[in-house]
Amino acid sequence: MIKKALYNKIIVLVLLVVAVFGFCCFKYYILGKDYNSDILIKNATILTLNDSSEIVYNGWIAIKGENIVGIGEGKSDYKSKKIIDARGKVVMPGLINTHTHVAMAPFRGIDDKSKFNEWLVSINKYEEVVTAEDVYWSSLFGEIEMIKSGTTTFNDMYFFEESIAKSVENIGIRAVVDVPFNFENGGVKIKDEYLSKYENISTINFSIAPNPLINYSEEQLKEVKRIADENNLIVHIHIAEDWKERKAFIDEYDKTSIKMLSDTGLLGNKIVFAHAINFTEDEINYLSEYKNVGISFNPKSNMKLLGYTAPVKTMLEKGFIVGIGTDGVGSGNSLDIFDHINFIAFMSNECMSEKEFCESESGISPEKIVRMATVEGAKSLGLGNEIGSIEKGKKADVIFVDFRKMGLMPSYDIYSTLVYNTDGSDVTDSIINGKIVMENRIILGIDEKKAVEKVNKIFEKIKDFR
Amino acid sequence: MIKKALYNKIIVLVLLVVAVFGFCCFKYYILGKDYNSDILIKNATILTLNDSSEIVYNGWIAIKGENIVGIGEGKSDYKSKKIIDARGKVVMPGLINTHTHVAMAPFRGIDDKSKFNEWLVSINKYEEVVTAEDVYWSSLFGEIEMIKSGTTTFNDMYFFEESIAKSVENIGIRAVVDVPFNFENGGVKIKDEYLSKYENISTINFSIAPNPLINYSEEQLKEVKRIADENNLIVHIHIAEDWKERKAFIDEYDKTSIKMLSDTGLLGNKIVFAHAINFTEDEINYLSEYKNVGISFNPKSNMKLLGYTAPVKTMLEKGFIVGIGTDGVGSGNSLDIFDHINFIAFMSNECMSEKEFCESESGISPEKIVRMATVEGAKSLGLGNEIGSIEKGKKADVIFVDFRKMGLMPSYDIYSTLVYNTDGSDVTDSIINGKIVMENRIILGIDEKKAVEKVNKIFEKIKDFR
Repeated sequence: MIKKALYNKIIVLVLLVVAVFGFCCFKYYILGKDYNSDILIKNATILTLNDSSEIVYNGWIAIKGENIVGIGEGKSDYKSKKIIDARGKVVMPGLINTHTHVAMAPFRGIDDKSKFNEWLVSINKYEEVVTAEDVYWSSLFGEIEMIKSGTTTFNDMYFFEESIAKSVENIGIRAVVDVPFNFENGGVKIKDEYLSKYENISTINFSIAPNPLINYSEEQLKEVKRIADENNLIVHIHIAEDWKERKAFIDEYDKTSIKMLSDTGLLGNKIVFAHAINFTEDEINYLSEYKNVGISFNPKSNMKLLGYTAPVKTMLEKGFIVGIGTDGVGSGNSLDIFDHINFIAFMSNECMSEKEFCESESGISPEKIVRMATVEGAKSLGLGNEIGSIEKGKKADVIFVDFRKMGLMPSYDIYSTLVYNTDGSDVTDSIINGKIVMENRIILGIDEKKAVEKVNKIFEKIKDFR
Repeated sequence: MIKKALYNKIIVLVLLVVAVFGFCCFKYYILGKDYNSDILIKNATILTLNDSSEIVYNGWIAIKGENIVGIGEGKSDYKSKKIIDARGKVVMPGLINTHTHVAMAPFRGIDDKSKFNEWLVSINKYEEVVTAEDVYWSSLFGEIEMIKSGTTTFNDMYFFEESIAKSVENIGIRAVVDVPFNFENGGVKIKDEYLSKYENISTINFSIAPNPLINYSEEQLKEVKRIADENNLIVHIHIAEDWKERKAFIDEYDKTSIKMLSDTGLLGNKIVFAHAINFTEDEINYLSEYKNVGISFNPKSNMKLLGYTAPVKTMLEKGFIVGIGTDGVGSGNSLDIFDHINFIAFMSNECMSEKEFCESESGISPEKIVRMATVEGAKSLGLGNEIGSIEKGKKADVIFVDFRKMGLMPSYDIYSTLVYNTDGSDVTDSIINGKIVMENRIILGIDEKKAVEKVNKIFEKIKDFR
């Protein structure tokens, strides 16, 4: 009898397990077929940054695969495996850093005193001890910093490019990485196998970055153009950062760098100019006709190293596409775009007239600054059709900003709050290319602690070398 | 037998309880008499900001009552009830905000567009709906924000001063609050009982703030001086903020505001000038002789409202005592001093010469900026002997900055890291007047959530009024 009772119990237990399993199968396999999206964000204040800068209150966004498949107000009909409640938060396009050297992490604060030319010499000296592995870990460190402050795409320029591409792939951020190439051994070394490795990874795009421009002959720049055309690369150039550079270029080639770019045809390519400070008025007028030219405005780095910045208010008036760059942390100190847009907001109010006319001068509007940090940045990198705004069909690169943080209270205007009061640490979540990369400030899929430990060893090495 | 065994067990238990109790008594009552300090901070990197800007690595600080009673390197002989391990952190004097209107919390971002005169009109309109209770809660909100970003002392100017003083007392921050007074009903209404209420609260100091200065006649200012002298108050004045103000003052009194202050004797008192932008060269030279004059530099507020800031590099060269002010959040947007010193660091690099001479111009050094935010700020408020540095005998106002945060890594120079890379959210703990006011970013002794809720209601009221 006892034995029989035991059997009965076992049978009940087995039936129970089968029932639970069956329910799960039903829920995930049968009902699952009805899921028409992967992520549904609800109860959000959505800053679309579309052409009419529409704001959707109490809105939803549906994401499937890499893309935004729907956006609307109120309750959504989309069924999704993952639902994110964005109550109290502003959901906006991920920020775009249009010019940085992400692997410069070990050089933050190594020389906060020197001016541009002296600074370049000291940084180049320290860079000599950096290995390909160092660049991998330093990039990962910088990318963590960027994701944690709301950046979802960055445009990079550095050496050991393969290490950077690897870090980008591993953490899941979107980037434009420059390709390795040189003319020294009688030939261009950009290998087909290098670019083909990344063909299926839609978060990595490539640029070609002839830097410093003065080191490239007219013939070589024509070859750069050929490579760019052949491989569909954007061109990324440091230009007009220092006024001495201008003079040196003319001494060397008997023409300006802009004339050289024009003569070689490169000015017709999709091109990003980083810094773009020391242009003449004529050059600004001339360049304003080139809608393929994007400007990366790097105000903090420029103010620190040079004492002045690009004439960005003039450039905006003339219709330039202007994005925002942090530059490397060796000069810009922070990869937090919110930090840089705050600086732009206050600085752009600087009055250039006599005091009696200051009241009629206005700064760049908060809305315009947020557009520069998102959709205009995307356009400047040739990615305007893919990212930069929250619109159906675009890649799902969105961030969540917690408007319940004390420093963001009260908010009378969302754009104003974002540029004047928000800090990178107010970003709680980040979705890049349809994947949740940060949730409640935890970066998923990588070992953050290990990255910090690895980079600390690099810091120690550089301190010793110093 | 069973009963006897039970009795034995009970006896053993009772003896055990007595023994534990006895040990506790021994520890807390007998050994406790040997405690010669209340708080011992150990394993700290101490930024003293004393006259030689000494930095103590692996240091300790002993606090007893309100004061710092010892500071040293290595292991301390002090015995203390509370021991704080500051490993990985920089312990420095609390930051000093030398000019704000703390109760303006509801006006953050309410008008980020208007220039000075138009802005004043709109703010004054909104201020009409503010009650004494609103000022209490708004002040508490602002004080939470300040403590959380490392400020331990602020110099205020506003109305409903009693509400502000009450909030200061309740949260435990240090402040200089202006006294309520008016000449309207034929007499000064500063009551002896008002000041006497706070006699025993050493965290509250008082100022007299004739504001706006143009509204006070020469006779009234002489009376202001008499009150200041009689009650040992510092004088807190908005001066030379707007260039039009200068002109209006001369039109009204046939002399400049500086001449008026000189004629009434007020210029001889301990005085803080907020803004101090539109002085003539002669006035700057004249004022540089007055060592009782402190300048409160408010760069973010001034850049936003006016488009320019005080000539602070010149003032520093001429030996002025210069502290840093955030102004109210209605114009300065943030009460986080780290945010404002970062702006000063970058901005002070702005080149005023032709480009070819920019490389020889230098910004204000990070060490000098940190001194402005601490010890120079203290001097500007007449509190130089009490606070502003970590020295034996001074009040214990110290903050802990976590140098293990990613954005602060690496650190090659502590001052440089503080001004270029640190954010208020990197402050973990705060001790004010010998009391722990914030521990691991939790503010002790007040209900933060309630304060936020109360202030949210004020925000709603103002939004409705708007």
